[in-house]
Amino acid sequence: MSDTPQKFGVSRRGLLGATATGAVAAATGVGASLLTGSPARAAESASLKPGELDEYYGFWSSGQTGELRILGVPSMREIMRVPVFNRCSATGWGQTNESLKILTEGLLPETREMLAAHGKKTYDNGDLHHPHMSFTDGTYDGRYLFMNDKANTRVARVRCDVMKCDKIIEIPNAHDIHGLRPQKYPRTGYVFANGEHEAPLVNDGQILDDPSQYVNIYTAIDGDTMEIAWQVMVSGNLDNTDCDYQGKYSFSTSYNSEMGMNLAEMTANEMDHVVVFNLKEIEAGIAAGDYQELNGVKVIDGRKGQNKNYTRYIPIPNSPHGINTAPDGMHVMINGKLSPTVSIMDVTKLDDLFAGTIEPRDCIVAEPELGLGPLHTAFDGKGNCFTTLFLDSQVVKWSIDKALAGEDPILEKVDVAYQPGHNSTSMGETKEADGKWLVSMNKFSKDRFLNTGPLKAENEQLIAIENGSMEVVHDGPTFAEPHDSIIVRADIVNPVNVWNRDDPMWEEARRQAEADGVDLDWGHDEPIRDGNKVRVYMHSIAPNFSLEKFTVKQGDEVTIYVTNMDDIDDVTHGFCLSNFGIAMEVAPQATASVTFTATRPGVHWFYCQWFCHALHMEMRGRMFVEPRAT
Amino acid sequence: MSDTPQKFGVSRRGLLGATATGAVAAATGVGASLLTGSPARAAESASLKPGELDEYYGFWSSGQTGELRILGVPSMREIMRVPVFNRCSATGWGQTNESLKILTEGLLPETREMLAAHGKKTYDNGDLHHPHMSFTDGTYDGRYLFMNDKANTRVARVRCDVMKCDKIIEIPNAHDIHGLRPQKYPRTGYVFANGEHEAPLVNDGQILDDPSQYVNIYTAIDGDTMEIAWQVMVSGNLDNTDCDYQGKYSFSTSYNSEMGMNLAEMTANEMDHVVVFNLKEIEAGIAAGDYQELNGVKVIDGRKGQNKNYTRYIPIPNSPHGINTAPDGMHVMINGKLSPTVSIMDVTKLDDLFAGTIEPRDCIVAEPELGLGPLHTAFDGKGNCFTTLFLDSQVVKWSIDKALAGEDPILEKVDVAYQPGHNSTSMGETKEADGKWLVSMNKFSKDRFLNTGPLKAENEQLIAIENGSMEVVHDGPTFAEPHDSIIVRADIVNPVNVWNRDDPMWEEARRQAEADGVDLDWGHDEPIRDGNKVRVYMHSIAPNFSLEKFTVKQGDEVTIYVTNMDDIDDVTHGFCLSNFGIAMEVAPQATASVTFTATRPGVHWFYCQWFCHALHMEMRGRMFVEPRAT
Repeated sequence: MSDTPQKFGVSRRGLLGATATGAVAAATGVGASLLTGSPARAAESASLKPGELDEYYGFWSSGQTGELRILGVPSMREIMRVPVFNRCSATGWGQTNESLKILTEGLLPETREMLAAHGKKTYDNGDLHHPHMSFTDGTYDGRYLFMNDKANTRVARVRCDVMKCDKIIEIPNAHDIHGLRPQKYPRTGYVFANGEHEAPLVNDGQILDDPSQYVNIYTAIDGDTMEIAWQVMVSGNLDNTDCDYQGKYSFSTSYNSEMGMNLAEMTANEMDHVVVFNLKEIEAGIAAGDYQELNGVKVIDGRKGQNKNYTRYIPIPNSPHGINTAPDGMHVMINGKLSPTVSIMDVTKLDDLFAGTIEPRDCIVAEPELGLGPLHTAFDGKGNCFTTLFLDSQVVKWSIDKALAGEDPILEKVDVAYQPGHNSTSMGETKEADGKWLVSMNKFSKDRFLNTGPLKAENEQLIAIENGSMEVVHDGPTFAEPHDSIIVRADIVNPVNVWNRDDPMWEEARRQAEADGVDLDWGHDEPIRDGNKVRVYMHSIAPNFSLEKFTVKQGDEVTIYVTNMDDIDDVTHGFCLSNFGIAMEVAPQATASVTFTATRPGVHWFYCQWFCHALHMEMRGRMFVEPRAT
Repeated sequence: MSDTPQKFGVSRRGLLGATATGAVAAATGVGASLLTGSPARAAESASLKPGELDEYYGFWSSGQTGELRILGVPSMREIMRVPVFNRCSATGWGQTNESLKILTEGLLPETREMLAAHGKKTYDNGDLHHPHMSFTDGTYDGRYLFMNDKANTRVARVRCDVMKCDKIIEIPNAHDIHGLRPQKYPRTGYVFANGEHEAPLVNDGQILDDPSQYVNIYTAIDGDTMEIAWQVMVSGNLDNTDCDYQGKYSFSTSYNSEMGMNLAEMTANEMDHVVVFNLKEIEAGIAAGDYQELNGVKVIDGRKGQNKNYTRYIPIPNSPHGINTAPDGMHVMINGKLSPTVSIMDVTKLDDLFAGTIEPRDCIVAEPELGLGPLHTAFDGKGNCFTTLFLDSQVVKWSIDKALAGEDPILEKVDVAYQPGHNSTSMGETKEADGKWLVSMNKFSKDRFLNTGPLKAENEQLIAIENGSMEVVHDGPTFAEPHDSIIVRADIVNPVNVWNRDDPMWEEARRQAEADGVDLDWGHDEPIRDGNKVRVYMHSIAPNFSLEKFTVKQGDEVTIYVTNMDDIDDVTHGFCLSNFGIAMEVAPQATASVTFTATRPGVHWFYCQWFCHALHMEMRGRMFVEPRAT
């Protein structure tokens, strides 16, 4: 392979100047084929009859909405929302003591201080880009989902048994976590997280407008403990990341190897790079003490020119974005974004690269030109790739073998509507890729749905790929935004129907009840008073709360614990305290609690806000707040 | 018609004791027919091909999620979420100055005080039950949507031109607004809102556990000004409400006419009632000064035994829930909940009722027995009704004419999955009901979708009704909850694609920019400093913010104004300030702003979090926070 940059289909200046919408109109003539195959049959297989179950779980990021979404594939129905970085009015996420513990315990001290200055305990927003499941031996294992928050530099974990977030950590030293992937082999293991935006390593205001002193940080988190294992300081920024199937290397793209501070500077060079991280060498470096400790984290220096074996920088045209390891375990697709190419990296060459016996570009074994704006590549496990072309508003199907042989690898192109970003195939990021379904997550929907005003849905399109050709069978509108997704065989995911009463989620409630001599399962007839702190324990069995009423004094700090003693599938209760802004979900056999100050004297109703029974509306009771003596 | 209570299909005790899930298993033998007609054909008409537009807008409440949802019908795809009572991570609803104005300006003084004690400006949650569109001459007019918040006693309005909430008011004196409907004729006009939970009229803590002194409050809001026109004090609680097609009467069900404080007391009587409100008499009473003024609102006494012409109480069996006016303009269906009956009220008899020439029960012209747990009735405009049977988990289709003639009115029953609450038909709550589609909003989904853990989706089912029989053609999972919906012909709703720069939404930003001598469209190169208050004005044109960087001092109160000068459909930008918990939507030609304290020194990136362009990720800039002198 040659080191020369790609040939552009349109001029670079044209690309940079055009808006996305303008560019697509200009650029859709590039070899789009009409739909082939049998769309009607594929559409039928995607359209489930009432009561039929989907074959796959889709785990979906919501981008700036901050939640995780669970979809069914192929029906593309959203089955559940799991609040993570956002606030949730329905479940009380960000309000219950149990969720506040998760949202706050991993925050950095300076963040707590900043939030306190705004009267807050938690961030109210997140930008959740990349949800990925834990792996064992190269495929999904159904334990956890991991996901990043670009907005506030966090990584979260969701337990797949109950589909609730159980850990959120803020990453020190790094800024604005973007790409995230779990280790594939032997297991997760590490969760790799990219700091996207460059800043001074010690960002205390002593260095401001001096980009020469900015760095970027790559983070490896221990997925079992959710503690940070180590960090690597790198040159250039970090965009997306992936890793191999051998547990030896991980790699991240850099769209701004220039460390530019504005558009012109960021896109100045024709070549940017991929950073390759040598996991064993980094672990050895940490063990040998070759790090600085910063905010409690061991930071290795893996910048260019360190002459160490922690990292290598492979030049890639141009502002590469997505990076995707093929199920063959050998080839890694690096998507050129401003280059019409995908660079194919052969991971079996990385040992030699680190040994210094080959040059960085020798790891790139092919660099096929595919179309305008390649962003991400997905796989069918049969040697074929599906790459989104943002500017062409197309997905291109192409053959790895043909590309390696130097032939034209393009097999087919299909129009998508419009401007695709990520895509995913069923089981496509594992060694069990099965080549049934492809989802293209498109950033614009324009005319595809009924008009909803200036803010429009995005569009995730389902494409049947099993029969050889690509057939768009479904348009799915999505609220900000269908950023990324994974599609997981249903047999891998086995959630419970009812909580275990011993679950750690309400460990602190259990401890407090024990201290108060209260049976947390059943509650207590009277509030427990402790100075001006009052604890109220009740249970729910449809259609009753165990307390019809209770009394507190104005100004008391009140904590209410509700345990749902119903143990029938799907009989979730809610607890909503009117005019106090309090509401929470209590699923079967769960405990939830909330703390507030009883500022308002008078009669205040609490009610079940999660429909449970024919007499649901009658499931309510009164809190009396005795006025302060005047 | 006789005054005797209904015959129960199962014993009352059985009903009260069983959980919903238990009861459905016991009660599904009641005449369920198998699907008839041609499901395949109906399913096909519901399943749109990629790119095909829906025929109807569905406006959906989300219950405790607190947002409004816009679906397409018949595809049942969620096209847009509109934050209303909730916080929204994506759009910054509850964080931008523009949304905070809407969320706070209608709050009561004691609510502001309560929120301030918790470090908050707004409620973070809501329980949005009933979204309804404004009417002109008996049908939807596409101006506004109105909706209630049961959790925190509020009513909100959404502008249909931009699909954003523009007004939220908290209702004084009432507690926990539940039922809500707009006046149908001559126009909206009034928005009627039910206070569900009873409490002392002056709820300051002087009266606590003395239910004999509790009252309930019915509220009429002026839909144009969103000010309260008047309130009526009533006997018994208030559940759902509707009104006639003459502009003379409105009416609300009471499931707790007993004013009971627990389940046994609330369900003690075999007969509860509907309250009928005489709008002209109430207006005359207000004009004549027959009211007390309480918290700035004129409150009429319409309780039982007042011997005035403001209200009448019509006995209805038993804990009636939904109330629905048929498109014939004459008949109102009152759904019995604990009675297996629907009581048909003839509105043409209400003049005589108020004149005292007939008895209340004379207004009930039929009371057909339909099945267990009738909750809500929808209409096809052809003389047929569709009533949800919560306990039977069925929808029953029945004929008004047959019921009036004293014949068995039941035409067909169809199983739904499971426990239906509200239902709605296309245009069914207007005089233009067209009988094409029926949606059954079911509270439990259990086995209908892939398992998502202890918390399961609810299920909205689409039923084709045009061909005479009912055919369930689609199961749609929904996150908490599909409470209620309306289905509106697409030609009635005509949102704009791009904001008008003169929109009142950012009136205060416009005023401030003028005072600062800044062109709000284009922004300003340097921050405007005013003591420790700093205002930063910038615009966005993909893929750039007009400011690459700006500098403030630690501790400054910073307001950032972003104007999106792109004017292409669908090119919405975002503004996200990393590690400050700040993110907001800025749709084409809109201005949005946010205020925060610059507590953290150092380099902080802001970026566009709403995908806009191939160089979206490069659309970012730096805020420098100079550290305090030490």
